[in-house]
Amino acid sequence: MSTTIDVPAETTSKNNIGNGIRKVPGAPPRPEGGWKKGLAIIDFVLRLGAIASALGAAATMATSDETLPFFTQFFQFEASYDSFSTFQYFVIAMAFVGGYLVLSLPFSIVTIIRLHAAGPRLFLIILDTVFLTIATSSAAAATAIVYLAHNGNQDSNWLAICNQFGDFCQAISGAVVASFVAVVLFVLLIVMCAVALRNH
Amino acid sequence: MSTTIDVPAETTSKNNIGNGIRKVPGAPPRPEGGWKKGLAIIDFVLRLGAIASALGAAATMATSDETLPFFTQFFQFEASYDSFSTFQYFVIAMAFVGGYLVLSLPFSIVTIIRLHAAGPRLFLIILDTVFLTIATSSAAAATAIVYLAHNGNQDSNWLAICNQFGDFCQAISGAVVASFVAVVLFVLLIVMCAVALRNH
Repeated sequence: MSTTIDVPAETTSKNNIGNGIRKVPGAPPRPEGGWKKGLAIIDFVLRLGAIASALGAAATMATSDETLPFFTQFFQFEASYDSFSTFQYFVIAMAFVGGYLVLSLPFSIVTIIRLHAAGPRLFLIILDTVFLTIATSSAAAATAIVYLAHNGNQDSNWLAICNQFGDFCQAISGAVVASFVAVVLFVLLIVMCAVALRNH
Repeated sequence: MSTTIDVPAETTSKNNIGNGIRKVPGAPPRPEGGWKKGLAIIDFVLRLGAIASALGAAATMATSDETLPFFTQFFQFEASYDSFSTFQYFVIAMAFVGGYLVLSLPFSIVTIIRLHAAGPRLFLIILDTVFLTIATSSAAAATAIVYLAHNGNQDSNWLAICNQFGDFCQAISGAVVASFVAVVLFVLLIVMCAVALRNH
């Protein structure tokens, strides 16, 4: 059983006189604070990267449409993301995740300035976990449809549409790749936040 | 700037004599340890629930197949999960997640016995995050295909197959629901682990 006491640095050095240990005034800052600050700054940079990939994925998917110059028996003139409800969910979810990440930046800055603030870190790790789930679900659902669009499915007679809509398929594939970059960055953010929380 | 000092309870009471405050010997244990133990036990119970839903989802999907008594121009005699690579991924990923959860149970028991051990908690939160991503991706990808099987897609001329394969569709829908139960339990596990880590 232990009690945690929050003592300002000056008080600590005064108390240490009694134990025969004296802190040298003007000593360099403890290395623990150093790597913690580095972790907080990397957290901020990774958030910027995740914003770019999430919003990039949403924008790429939202602008993907292709109109064919001809008409066949099976396919219509135009392929667009809003033909598929999965891709609509993808655009909404990725824009939502990007918006959350932008709003989380101030909290990330707080953890850089106040290294020992556990509150903002706990807040970030909980919301990061929720939005990781949203980002992963939209990315994986879109991947399943992109796979079908490329390969089709013999048994259920779903034909591949990428033979006809090549540019459309390239756009949606790019969006899916960008969304998985955001997912990987989210996992790194949570792991780093947990490591920083452990050392409080 | 502040420094956190970890002082054992006995030392605190000795030090307090100088300040005129004395702790009563044999006082009841502090309530902090109580809720922490409760959190660790809930963690263990939630893990059992997540194992049941993950393995249940994998088993339901793996045993889903339906043979029709007739033959039509478009559909074959049999629908099975291994017609769809997404469902194959689902079965493998869910079995994998269930296996991880079983192996994580000893670490969960360690956190019940040793309430102040930060190492096992950090280990669990990092692996939980990774397996949350795997579980969510397989659940979402399967959901996208189940949605297509139920509703089809007009624009790409993918017909709904659930009119023909009703029992198959019920089985895969049930598996998807079970997998999302596992995802929700994973999110709760990570949040609880982060709260417990914060108070170390």
